[in-house]
Amino acid sequence: MTAYQTLSDRFRRIGLLNDAGAILSWDGAAMMQPGSAAARAEVDAALAITIHERLTAPDMGEWFDRVDPKPLDAWQQANLAGMRRLWLHATAVPADLVEALSKAASASEHRWRIARKENDFKGLQPLLEEVLRLTREVARVKAAAFGCSPYDALLDQYEPGGSSARVKGLFDELKTFLPGLIAGALEAQARRPAPLQPTGPFPIEAQRALGQSMMQALGFDFSRGRLDISAHPFCGGTPDDQRLTTRYFETDFARALMGTLHETGHALYEAGLPPEWRQQPVGSARGMSLHESQSLFVEMQISRSLAFQRFAAPKIRAAFGVDGPEWTPENLLALGTRVTRGFIRVDADECTYPAHVLLRTELEQAMIAGDLEIADLPGAWDEGMRALLGVTPPNHHDGCLQDIHWPSGAFGYFPTYTMGAMTAAQLRVSLDQVMPDLDAKVEAGDFQPIVAWLKANVHSLASSLSADEILTKATGRPLDVTAYRRHLERRYLSAKDA
Amino acid sequence: MTAYQTLSDRFRRIGLLNDAGAILSWDGAAMMQPGSAAARAEVDAALAITIHERLTAPDMGEWFDRVDPKPLDAWQQANLAGMRRLWLHATAVPADLVEALSKAASASEHRWRIARKENDFKGLQPLLEEVLRLTREVARVKAAAFGCSPYDALLDQYEPGGSSARVKGLFDELKTFLPGLIAGALEAQARRPAPLQPTGPFPIEAQRALGQSMMQALGFDFSRGRLDISAHPFCGGTPDDQRLTTRYFETDFARALMGTLHETGHALYEAGLPPEWRQQPVGSARGMSLHESQSLFVEMQISRSLAFQRFAAPKIRAAFGVDGPEWTPENLLALGTRVTRGFIRVDADECTYPAHVLLRTELEQAMIAGDLEIADLPGAWDEGMRALLGVTPPNHHDGCLQDIHWPSGAFGYFPTYTMGAMTAAQLRVSLDQVMPDLDAKVEAGDFQPIVAWLKANVHSLASSLSADEILTKATGRPLDVTAYRRHLERRYLSAKDA
Repeated sequence: MTAYQTLSDRFRRIGLLNDAGAILSWDGAAMMQPGSAAARAEVDAALAITIHERLTAPDMGEWFDRVDPKPLDAWQQANLAGMRRLWLHATAVPADLVEALSKAASASEHRWRIARKENDFKGLQPLLEEVLRLTREVARVKAAAFGCSPYDALLDQYEPGGSSARVKGLFDELKTFLPGLIAGALEAQARRPAPLQPTGPFPIEAQRALGQSMMQALGFDFSRGRLDISAHPFCGGTPDDQRLTTRYFETDFARALMGTLHETGHALYEAGLPPEWRQQPVGSARGMSLHESQSLFVEMQISRSLAFQRFAAPKIRAAFGVDGPEWTPENLLALGTRVTRGFIRVDADECTYPAHVLLRTELEQAMIAGDLEIADLPGAWDEGMRALLGVTPPNHHDGCLQDIHWPSGAFGYFPTYTMGAMTAAQLRVSLDQVMPDLDAKVEAGDFQPIVAWLKANVHSLASSLSADEILTKATGRPLDVTAYRRHLERRYLSAKDA
Repeated sequence: MTAYQTLSDRFRRIGLLNDAGAILSWDGAAMMQPGSAAARAEVDAALAITIHERLTAPDMGEWFDRVDPKPLDAWQQANLAGMRRLWLHATAVPADLVEALSKAASASEHRWRIARKENDFKGLQPLLEEVLRLTREVARVKAAAFGCSPYDALLDQYEPGGSSARVKGLFDELKTFLPGLIAGALEAQARRPAPLQPTGPFPIEAQRALGQSMMQALGFDFSRGRLDISAHPFCGGTPDDQRLTTRYFETDFARALMGTLHETGHALYEAGLPPEWRQQPVGSARGMSLHESQSLFVEMQISRSLAFQRFAAPKIRAAFGVDGPEWTPENLLALGTRVTRGFIRVDADECTYPAHVLLRTELEQAMIAGDLEIADLPGAWDEGMRALLGVTPPNHHDGCLQDIHWPSGAFGYFPTYTMGAMTAAQLRVSLDQVMPDLDAKVEAGDFQPIVAWLKANVHSLASSLSADEILTKATGRPLDVTAYRRHLERRYLSAKDA
């Protein structure tokens, strides 16, 4: 057995243990009862430690040294690089620092749930300070190991090969037009008659059946996956055992439906990964911006379009046994593309969402660089909201306490949301070129060729190339803001939808 | 850290990984979609191998040698013995034999599902022969390690410290009266008017709510557990995260209800184990006969009684919105205690069930001893059915192909079912002595003192004592057949129920 094969076998075992963790994580959110949470935390920790021990086994470095890269093909070489990246992330940080951050983040996340409810920033502050202190330390040692900046070392955890310079290039351009776009969208919206608001209640069971039928239409394989309920919707499980969740509101059917379509985009990516590379780093999805591009492709590029609403409207009417002017495709689209200067990221529309991401990216970069302390976060947050969105949060609950990311130790994640939106727009332009009748296909519910194109151009490449290389193959160039800007302007500044 | 603490820490990790496996196993039966089974098998195997590697780490023997037992208290000493027992079971068998049996059993179990459906004994025969050959080999090497007989080494896997001699003593006595008891029960039954048969359909949702309310009445904690559906009902999960399953039949509400009560007995045992010994061998349930005694205590000693039916009948009538003479406690009890000379163990009544167990115990003992080969199994089975139950199975599906145990490699399990029934009866006699108003409590639905007694006398002792020691503390003597015989005679030979 060659050194490469030895490493590959070891990562296969690690991958399978991670798969066990993925199902347990879904269970914890969708099935487990609250009284079992403390016991489950112990199980999760034991599994995580076991995986970490395997990843950092003392002889791993030797095996990496012994690999002869010459006989390896391109995928194997990418796999070797992926294995080395995971190993470096795991070994760069001393075990006591890993443990300290894990415990601090766990305590801080737990406190955050109470603090947000009680609008109590001061109660969270010391715990969040400790998380930031330890995260800075982790960023510093990882930066040394990877030869990059501290923030980039954190970004790399979610966006392999991502860099602040790349993010800055994209986001600086975004900032030049976003405030004007939001203002223009609101003006254009004010000139149009307000959409009619359908009134519920919309029975959960009917919503569930509708969501499942849409998932099925998009190609979700229910023989290898499920749709359940959790407080925060997600796409979990494994490529061969997909666990989607959503959350139903009896007064608003669109929220669960669009959420389900979004998660289905994530699920299709996972399902389209090459089965022959299961459990190997090269066989996994290529970072969070590309992942988010797939969910946003389905949600924003496909579903929030007139063509899709023409496909969906009759099914929605049938699902709830309703009819009338509020149920036309045009009205449903108008409802689904309303723009509001709001406080909450997860409730934000497509147009204002990137402003929320810009703010968080700037703040977390400043925090990791040491230019912003937790004590100054509320002020900086509110100032940023005024500058980017022209609104001031009425309290911390709707301000700097709204996201779980920082309290749970996730710094470097936020930019991937908007990079994903940009990626989706750029992919859509290329798909339009090879599929001129795309809208007709969407309206007919013929999603198979669309998903097949995504599979061929994104999913099946897994981590064999970088995100920009994948995008260059699919669209002729690395990620830029052009297509995204044009998409937003076309949808939100013109009177009619594209 | 002492050697004992080191071992204890290692078993804690092993215990937590086993907990992960327990939730995954429930998921596989109750949640996972069929298309994910192959991928899940890989995950299960990776987790099992990881646990086995930790259990058989090369330095474990040294740590056992280094333990100074003097400062250990009784529970710690029992824990040490339990750790050693698990370690011996894991290390006694060479890795290639473990793997060979695991693969043979997996293939045989898979073939069995088809073979049973198609009544095709010949199709299973070679695979079952291989399982038996390898199981004999495992039994032989474990017998050498434990210093016992091969069959006892297998029995010990399910019934720690169990022995053929002990089983023989109990079962020989059982055989002296069981055929007469069955004949007498059928005669007594023939003299009574036939019970009235309630007709369905009984909606699943109403059955589920009824079952949950009964579980709640018995003290099942739904804040740390669930009730779901699976093809074969079981009590899974962990003591802190209990996962019960049942199976509903629209034509027969009693089957799911009694099954749920049975599994609740198992769950109460697990829930009553001492939390301070979680994940340690001494903190786990003391073998399968004691476990089955707890499910059968709830099902047979409590639920199939007139007192319980008086408690349950109004709730059952309300659940299904029914009334009439077929819904009296007396008629429901008569339905729940009918005796039939049937072919199928899992459908058997309380009175004929032990005959099925006697047959299987004799056959598996002969197979492990080398006195019976697979080719001769169908003949021996049918002969045994005639001798013990006076019926001849019409085919292999209802004969020697009915159980999953042997095809999946489980030899040495069967006797624990009936030892559990005997144990339950013996416990009941002692509980009657300290709780003379037990029937009144049951009729009032006041189960708390009953479960508290079981917890104090069985659950909370976990594996700190042997099954017979636990029984001696609770009932004044080790397990014997007296109470069981009296219970069966009183319930099935007299005109009225006790």
